[in-house]
Amino acid sequence: MITPQLLQPSSIAIVGASNDTSKPGGKVLFNILKHGFAGKVFGVNPKEQQVQGVLCYSSCDDLPDVDLAIIAIAAHQVEAALRSLAFHKNCKAFILFSAGFSEAGDSGKALEQRCVQIVEEVGGTLIGPNCIGVITGNYKGVFAGPVPTYDPMGCDCVSASGATMVYLLESAIPRGLKFRDIFSVGNSAQIGVEDVLEYWDETYDPAHSSSIKLLYMEQIADPMRFLKHARSLVNKGCRIAAIKAGNTEAGSRAVSSHTGALAGSDAAVSALFRKAGIIRCYSRIELVYVAAIFTIKPLKGNRIAVITHAGGPGVMLTDILVKGGMEVPHIEGAKADELLAKLHPGSSVSNPIDFLATGNALQLGEILDYVDNEFDEIDGAVVVFGTTGMWRVDDVYQVLHEKIKTCRKPIFPILPSAIQAAEEVSHFHTMGHVNFTDEVSFGYVLSRVNKLQPPYPEVQLPIVDVPRIREVIENNTSGYLPPEDVNALLQAAGIVTAAQATVRSEAEAIVAAKELGFPLVMKVVGPVHKSDVGGVVIDIQNEQEIAANYNRLMAIVGAEAVLLQQQRSGIEVYMGAKAEPPFGKLILCGLGGIFVEVFKDVSAALSPVHSEEAARMIRRLRSYPIIQGIRGKPGVSEELLVETILKLSALLEAAPEISEMDINPLLGSMESLVAVDARILIER
Amino acid sequence: MITPQLLQPSSIAIVGASNDTSKPGGKVLFNILKHGFAGKVFGVNPKEQQVQGVLCYSSCDDLPDVDLAIIAIAAHQVEAALRSLAFHKNCKAFILFSAGFSEAGDSGKALEQRCVQIVEEVGGTLIGPNCIGVITGNYKGVFAGPVPTYDPMGCDCVSASGATMVYLLESAIPRGLKFRDIFSVGNSAQIGVEDVLEYWDETYDPAHSSSIKLLYMEQIADPMRFLKHARSLVNKGCRIAAIKAGNTEAGSRAVSSHTGALAGSDAAVSALFRKAGIIRCYSRIELVYVAAIFTIKPLKGNRIAVITHAGGPGVMLTDILVKGGMEVPHIEGAKADELLAKLHPGSSVSNPIDFLATGNALQLGEILDYVDNEFDEIDGAVVVFGTTGMWRVDDVYQVLHEKIKTCRKPIFPILPSAIQAAEEVSHFHTMGHVNFTDEVSFGYVLSRVNKLQPPYPEVQLPIVDVPRIREVIENNTSGYLPPEDVNALLQAAGIVTAAQATVRSEAEAIVAAKELGFPLVMKVVGPVHKSDVGGVVIDIQNEQEIAANYNRLMAIVGAEAVLLQQQRSGIEVYMGAKAEPPFGKLILCGLGGIFVEVFKDVSAALSPVHSEEAARMIRRLRSYPIIQGIRGKPGVSEELLVETILKLSALLEAAPEISEMDINPLLGSMESLVAVDARILIER
Repeated sequence: MITPQLLQPSSIAIVGASNDTSKPGGKVLFNILKHGFAGKVFGVNPKEQQVQGVLCYSSCDDLPDVDLAIIAIAAHQVEAALRSLAFHKNCKAFILFSAGFSEAGDSGKALEQRCVQIVEEVGGTLIGPNCIGVITGNYKGVFAGPVPTYDPMGCDCVSASGATMVYLLESAIPRGLKFRDIFSVGNSAQIGVEDVLEYWDETYDPAHSSSIKLLYMEQIADPMRFLKHARSLVNKGCRIAAIKAGNTEAGSRAVSSHTGALAGSDAAVSALFRKAGIIRCYSRIELVYVAAIFTIKPLKGNRIAVITHAGGPGVMLTDILVKGGMEVPHIEGAKADELLAKLHPGSSVSNPIDFLATGNALQLGEILDYVDNEFDEIDGAVVVFGTTGMWRVDDVYQVLHEKIKTCRKPIFPILPSAIQAAEEVSHFHTMGHVNFTDEVSFGYVLSRVNKLQPPYPEVQLPIVDVPRIREVIENNTSGYLPPEDVNALLQAAGIVTAAQATVRSEAEAIVAAKELGFPLVMKVVGPVHKSDVGGVVIDIQNEQEIAANYNRLMAIVGAEAVLLQQQRSGIEVYMGAKAEPPFGKLILCGLGGIFVEVFKDVSAALSPVHSEEAARMIRRLRSYPIIQGIRGKPGVSEELLVETILKLSALLEAAPEISEMDINPLLGSMESLVAVDARILIER
Repeated sequence: MITPQLLQPSSIAIVGASNDTSKPGGKVLFNILKHGFAGKVFGVNPKEQQVQGVLCYSSCDDLPDVDLAIIAIAAHQVEAALRSLAFHKNCKAFILFSAGFSEAGDSGKALEQRCVQIVEEVGGTLIGPNCIGVITGNYKGVFAGPVPTYDPMGCDCVSASGATMVYLLESAIPRGLKFRDIFSVGNSAQIGVEDVLEYWDETYDPAHSSSIKLLYMEQIADPMRFLKHARSLVNKGCRIAAIKAGNTEAGSRAVSSHTGALAGSDAAVSALFRKAGIIRCYSRIELVYVAAIFTIKPLKGNRIAVITHAGGPGVMLTDILVKGGMEVPHIEGAKADELLAKLHPGSSVSNPIDFLATGNALQLGEILDYVDNEFDEIDGAVVVFGTTGMWRVDDVYQVLHEKIKTCRKPIFPILPSAIQAAEEVSHFHTMGHVNFTDEVSFGYVLSRVNKLQPPYPEVQLPIVDVPRIREVIENNTSGYLPPEDVNALLQAAGIVTAAQATVRSEAEAIVAAKELGFPLVMKVVGPVHKSDVGGVVIDIQNEQEIAANYNRLMAIVGAEAVLLQQQRSGIEVYMGAKAEPPFGKLILCGLGGIFVEVFKDVSAALSPVHSEEAARMIRRLRSYPIIQGIRGKPGVSEELLVETILKLSALLEAAPEISEMDINPLLGSMESLVAVDARILIER
């Protein structure tokens, strides 16, 4: 939990304070003093009596009481300092820069745990270790990176990598992005990304909090807590962009089923972000562009006017917007002609609106007014305007400033002249704006942001036969379940299965066949990849064929029994699920056969799955046209697919022991969806 | 053709010269004077006797002879000036800034044509109109944009958009990119991108020419000439990156076949670039990153060491490299341990090589030496190194400088501290280096560059029966060919077709059926989408079925005859071709059915197709695993696929009248590939 002393300390001690600003303890003191911290500041350094004009004590023991300690000493000295501060100086907040803790091996890990324990004993907050610090409205407690302009409505930031935070600022500041609170959580010994989200969530106040949250993580320790607070923040009106880096599990694990190969923690991260309504970014520059878009009022549609004095960039921007699913609608009619008459001869208003290299501020104002008031087919405008270098463009950026403030529709400024219009762009930033420099990077990111869906609400799963599910699970040990139990679980979850019987002799087979009726499918029970060992025979039409195949199937290595099943037809659908700790169960769906095997065309969601989430899983498939039905061929009922995904999700909630399962295939039509083969692996 | 007077003028007249550098005629004069043009400079301006210290004439008629005229006057005054200069002043090179020509409508177009005619009458060169000018080693004849540092080994550039050129420089200069010759060709009235390529090609000298060429185009007027010179340049050792913008044809054309929907000029551009060995870029920043990579010695493999003092950026970089098909191999062994011992405790050398926030210049030098000399599993290194802001990093960048010069393996520097290390980065540029700022953008681009294939050589197509092909074509008017003729063309090209007969009565059908043998397929002849109208019947087993279906098929609207064909089995393959002026014929291939219809999984190449090019078309398909054979099922012979693509290409070369065709499906196996349905449209 984050204490008030971390956010609003009235006094700060710098342990390891220095006059040398090339040391963390020197630089953080410099930053605190330079940026006008209003409270008391003390130094601790056995070699100094004063540092940078501040009173310096030789040890923590000599300090008066302090709210916050910023600790920049060697790892082996930290524990003693913490004890003194926590137990004797009433200190409730600690920022620990030092490295050499859990990231450095077992003894560092033990030391880190002892430090957390000390802090928790006094109900304090520990940020770090191995971090660059904290920035709040109150103080700038960081030793690294450019200190950004503080803006109470600027971006809130949390990063598990100090270097990423530093280099994010290096990219963000030149685009005019402003920042509010920054937390570099380092090793997250006590306070991690989830805690910061919780703090933002619980203190959120639309009038006084920032609505933009930027996150950098390399792991998500508690995905459910992460989801809870992220979703809540987005529902309160926040917009969150996050990088989750470190997707290196590929190929390294044993794969016992398709699901094993298709799932993976990276898919779980994306599924988690979708559930929470977070936009996932993959680079610093993408995060900066998304954040800058977040500072501008949201688009209410996908129809963009591209306004420029520069032909080429307008063309490239149009290309990428259309490719990303946005529209750049043709503009025509009396109002368009009226606008055209106000521009230089040779201009075009048909969109892109090109008002030529000689286009001026007055004309830009006219264009933006027409876009805002007259062109109902347009939801927002992108303005690309730089300079040839022959004249200053202050007047143009002044118009941009005014129109961004007054227009109802959003206006996105792309100001590409980083060198020649550096001063004008800087001045534009001081008026409270951001700018983008590369039109194509912008267009790509805008179309991603515009597709972002709101979080999925809490889920009401269908009711399933929990006692029966528990009974089946309790009766099994770890491993693959026998087919009768697989069938029982699916039925208990309300998932329709093809009628079937497991038999252990030819005579039993013939009795069962009569009950089930021909045609039948015969499958060997035992081997995991039945098809690969010739263990599946279709189109069994009579008793003779049963007899002929029974013995052959039982001769296959690993054969335990034979499964007889009514033969069904339909489109092959695949559904699967996999435990993906710590994210819970990842549910996958797609079409079966080559679609899943060759094209890896599957969608994923984390259980429990919301019905709208399931519907979007289906619509996101590249093979969705087949589900809809193509070329006169009927497809598969989306309603049944959604229902079955939700039932699968309910089964997984009732049986957390299921570590991996797939139903492959279900045979689907507009009328029915029937599971004809399934495997379930449980781990107790 | 580009005259020596354009490249090395001994005298320049600025028509429209001005003292006002906010005018093109003032700014270009300023740039020429400032950057030390060694020849004579004159102004032409009726209102001035001297401009910026240069002698000024009141009209072109008063000028002495000049090599080059740079013309910055209103469009309506241009023709008279050109006549005077061309016919009376021995002027052989003209750069025309003025707008108001072909881009402004019919009268502008006529004026532009007259201007070209004047210039061609004297064997001169005309650059523009509607351009920002030319930069050579001799003079800086541009009015817009930052004038880059001239480097005889820097990037050569040609752009059809002046604004794109200006903003490209705005992005490139801050990354340290140097430039050689720049041509802004504007409307390309006489000199277009192809002419500049031809000039570079014909004058290429490895010792004195730049090997990096950057292009921006919105159209490619003469793709075959473009290909000829681009391929030749790449074969001589050049590396070319190009943007072709303006891909807006989507959805706007009538689509009469799959091929119509799948092809398109944008696919043709990509196919042309692949043929020439050009890397296609989509944004200015991507072009800048590619160009910067081109300045560094090429990677000889795809195995990268990621070296950093900054954890997070190293992780993000590793993610994107692996996603892009590069390897970041695990490094271990005695030499790795030896290196680790030289770094601070807590460092890692297992790759990423993380030498911590406290890592220094000496350690970076050690790491780079080990990578270069000891780690054979590594082909090149990326170094991410910025600053916390606590100390300068000159010494680190000095080491980078030395190692980039001396190491055998390429080293790519990512220097993210644009603000805090601005001076050090600048100094690094002055030592002749580029740098990248965003590690993920870099990783994405590097993996693209590393996949670039050399140009495909000139093509030897298989020999086809040209007389027979010509005979069939000559016997038809524009439109879809009848099935016998389709069959004849495919056979003349050596493409195997299923045995077939076209019949016009039930009696004829029965005779033909006996010859062909059962089972048969019956298809209506006439309607284009036969399946959609119930016009295809498979599995015809006997004469009764022939009789039963013949009359039904002939009753379909548009039915002209019935085609009987031997029934074949195999994997459905799709091949198609489409005239894509001015690119010639685009050939497409993929698997048939849903692969082409739903997944749009096709590869394209421009005819004539080289055998290696055809092989890569196949391997590029997402459905390639099916062609290879999956799960024990046999695939389709790649050799037969390649052969058939080449035969199709040969057919198209022999019959340029074919404007659109598809063979859908061919039925393929490891032994045969047989066309069972095809359509050919010709346009005379």
